[in-house]
Amino acid sequence: MSKGLLVVISAPSGGGKGTILQELFRTGDSLRYSVSATTRAPRPGEIDGEHYYFVSREAFEEMLENGKMLEHTEYLGNYYGTPREPVEHWTAQGYDVVLEIEVDGGGQIKKLMPECVSIFILPPSMQVLSQRLHGRGTEDEATVQRRLEAAKGEIPHAKDYDYIVINDRLEDAVAEIRAILKAEKLRYSRNTDCIERVLNDAQAI
Amino acid sequence: MSKGLLVVISAPSGGGKGTILQELFRTGDSLRYSVSATTRAPRPGEIDGEHYYFVSREAFEEMLENGKMLEHTEYLGNYYGTPREPVEHWTAQGYDVVLEIEVDGGGQIKKLMPECVSIFILPPSMQVLSQRLHGRGTEDEATVQRRLEAAKGEIPHAKDYDYIVINDRLEDAVAEIRAILKAEKLRYSRNTDCIERVLNDAQAI
Repeated sequence: MSKGLLVVISAPSGGGKGTILQELFRTGDSLRYSVSATTRAPRPGEIDGEHYYFVSREAFEEMLENGKMLEHTEYLGNYYGTPREPVEHWTAQGYDVVLEIEVDGGGQIKKLMPECVSIFILPPSMQVLSQRLHGRGTEDEATVQRRLEAAKGEIPHAKDYDYIVINDRLEDAVAEIRAILKAEKLRYSRNTDCIERVLNDAQAI
Repeated sequence: MSKGLLVVISAPSGGGKGTILQELFRTGDSLRYSVSATTRAPRPGEIDGEHYYFVSREAFEEMLENGKMLEHTEYLGNYYGTPREPVEHWTAQGYDVVLEIEVDGGGQIKKLMPECVSIFILPPSMQVLSQRLHGRGTEDEATVQRRLEAAKGEIPHAKDYDYIVINDRLEDAVAEIRAILKAEKLRYSRNTDCIERVLNDAQAI
């Protein structure tokens, strides 16, 4: 059994990452979701241990000191980070583990683990992004404007990612992510034992 | 419109490359096939201009001298090569052009054009390869043995290719090649204008 992929997915605020991941998990079977830890307050409907591990600033800093975070970042005054243990557990068992992380964390994790597959989800345009942020209706106008400004700063980080997926039609975006995962598993660099296996008459890949 | 991919596909003799490509073209619409030139004699059923351009040694060497070959190789005493003009014509128009080339040519073309996508088709095992070569029934035992020996020398070249596709079930192999092409088009390196397009409110990709 080959090791699972570590899949980093990032998007600017309102980029529709949540909806895409929901559909990806609904229709996939070899995926596991890496639940991030954060010090920010839960939004309505968010469940501790499912959407995030909501922890105190002190608890987060203790995990950092003990090397229990794969990566972390600070965003709008709060910490976000990826606990190391579940990621290593699932990839070792052949599952692809999806890390949904903030844009800054994405660049960091690609440096920490060059073998990861990183995907940046872009909105089709700033106009669509603005419509989506307003349509969500969970935040006041000042927060929406702050997120739009943040997005403008986040979008150029797309250049640090392996793949770009445009979030226009949901089913297209999900199919594109599936194709990326399928193709990445076929890279020679992830199957360096294939030559020996064929020549030795064992089944390859 | 973005430029099409240049897709290099190689396989050892009897690897089933022909059948896979036939199915790929039967079910795809944005693909074009690069017809190779060769100095070898046509096999039964092979049509000039469709399977190969069958040319004399003198004509081939003249094309080489005039820079009209993208790559070429010599294999079992015959020349094989890729005429440059059709490849440049179709990729410029957004079509993905498939080059079915000999193993040695594959390594060469990846150096000549690093942006190409190279795929090596491996048999599941040497045993299956032997069965397929015998089953083809178009060549005598001595030729089959020579091809098997050649394959043993060709298989290690898989390491020079981007992707490995195992030719076990035809439909799986075709689906894998499709996923590779779909994913490659989403690479940031092929979409470096996407950031600017989103920020300038044009549609990205």
